[in-house]
Amino acid sequence: MNDKVLIVGSVAYDTIETAVGKVERALGGAATYSSVAASYYCTPCMVAVVGEDFHDGHIEYFTGCGIDLCGLQRTEGKTFQWVGKYHDDMIGRETLDTQLNVFEKFDPVLPDELKKLKYVFLANIHPGLQKRVLEQVEDPEFVLCDTMDLWINTAKEELLELLPQVDVLVINDEEVRMLTGDYNIYRAARKLIDMGVKRGMVVKRGEHGSTLVTKDEIGFAPAFPIIELVDPTGAGDSFAGAVIGYLADAGEVNTKTLRSSLIQGAAVASFTVEGFGVERLLQIDRKDIDGRIKALCELMIVE
Amino acid sequence: MNDKVLIVGSVAYDTIETAVGKVERALGGAATYSSVAASYYCTPCMVAVVGEDFHDGHIEYFTGCGIDLCGLQRTEGKTFQWVGKYHDDMIGRETLDTQLNVFEKFDPVLPDELKKLKYVFLANIHPGLQKRVLEQVEDPEFVLCDTMDLWINTAKEELLELLPQVDVLVINDEEVRMLTGDYNIYRAARKLIDMGVKRGMVVKRGEHGSTLVTKDEIGFAPAFPIIELVDPTGAGDSFAGAVIGYLADAGEVNTKTLRSSLIQGAAVASFTVEGFGVERLLQIDRKDIDGRIKALCELMIVE
Repeated sequence: MNDKVLIVGSVAYDTIETAVGKVERALGGAATYSSVAASYYCTPCMVAVVGEDFHDGHIEYFTGCGIDLCGLQRTEGKTFQWVGKYHDDMIGRETLDTQLNVFEKFDPVLPDELKKLKYVFLANIHPGLQKRVLEQVEDPEFVLCDTMDLWINTAKEELLELLPQVDVLVINDEEVRMLTGDYNIYRAARKLIDMGVKRGMVVKRGEHGSTLVTKDEIGFAPAFPIIELVDPTGAGDSFAGAVIGYLADAGEVNTKTLRSSLIQGAAVASFTVEGFGVERLLQIDRKDIDGRIKALCELMIVE
Repeated sequence: MNDKVLIVGSVAYDTIETAVGKVERALGGAATYSSVAASYYCTPCMVAVVGEDFHDGHIEYFTGCGIDLCGLQRTEGKTFQWVGKYHDDMIGRETLDTQLNVFEKFDPVLPDELKKLKYVFLANIHPGLQKRVLEQVEDPEFVLCDTMDLWINTAKEELLELLPQVDVLVINDEEVRMLTGDYNIYRAARKLIDMGVKRGMVVKRGEHGSTLVTKDEIGFAPAFPIIELVDPTGAGDSFAGAVIGYLADAGEVNTKTLRSSLIQGAAVASFTVEGFGVERLLQIDRKDIDGRIKALCELMIVE
């Protein structure tokens, strides 16, 4: 049982348009979504940077969720900004603007208390930054790592250097193919292991659910049925945040806890997409999550 | 318990090219795949037409599987032919040539013994033809119906006329969207029911598995993990064939049997794609299917 988990990633202001509506400068970023998600299981210690324009109210959001902010820096300049628009299918999206701002020069120095943490989630951010943070962790037991097409295209070498320190990669279908050159996720998982990843991967498949593939394990979780999808932003981040939070709290990574973590991730991510930004994710409690987990397990009953 | 099921659809000679290789004039067609699949559960009575070029050896394949051929006509002309090439992802495909041949003038007249059957699968073929066959069935208890983008585009009116006689539609994501105009399968299922479908639909999602959505039921089955996919042709047809065969044999359609039928479909379809045409599907027995069902159920165990 670990009561804390280290999460490094982006904190951002997102302007998002979907078929349902639009929000401007909503609190977002991979570290935000994943930390809020992980907060339902243990204390997330967030390592990130924000600018002078970051609202105090948003700091209060974080602390209100029980997120430890000793690793959050506030520096001169502006907070990371992302502007995106989703296609009508709520899957495809266009990035209209990205401004890394304070993340461009972010050189994280971990407070001593964070160096001792055992469960680490390298949320989606430049792999060089993920690596610099991980190097400061003294003796990590389990490292979960996310990435995206942008880094596979622009920072592949740094990503490949990072892989041998990663236990499980969380990734989507297209990214798996980009990274391994293989359309088949079972062969792709073997290739990732050849590339150094210690245990394997979790393929995030949106409405199709998620699949765990390691050297000798396969596991499967459906997505929770969502009738009114509002904003898919952060679904993958909050999925992964719930996975690391659940695993840290369980204190052991094995086939059973890994498979259960996928169901936890599916349940938490299902709330994320029901509102813009973290809006909906901030309204729930553990009982709500448990309700969806029960429903997800029932979906899979065949006997 | 029903020992027979009625299946109408195409019998064809397929020329198929995939990343793995190529076959010329392989035995195929929706009625072929679905009847072979259903034959593991009960006796499929196939309603279709073949031409003078149809090999006696292929008739023997059918009878060897225990398929009842009293509804199979042999007429002047050539057997239906399809030529297709799959993209490297083994999902997208191009139809290079389609020759309906003997199906163009096929006017099926059901032998009396087939008119009394209770479980019917309208495999993928022109909806007008599906309707003409169904009209001859005296008192069907459960009608499963497949269709494809081609008919939604070219024979939508006839398809819409057919829907009120269908209990469950088997369909893929894209076809659901084409037919209902909705990207969300849960809303789309409601629309299908508004359009007359009695119970709901099963969405076939290839490697992502399948989802049952009815008025008040959701069920879910993963796809069996396939490492060496050879030829995806007929995966959906054999999935549906196993579903109708299993349900007919069970003799009752309820949440439990419907959910189980999805797992049966996943298991049988997983063999289909391991070889070209029906090659692999003809090599297996019920024990092989049961082995994969066990493995599929284990994939879903989370506690």
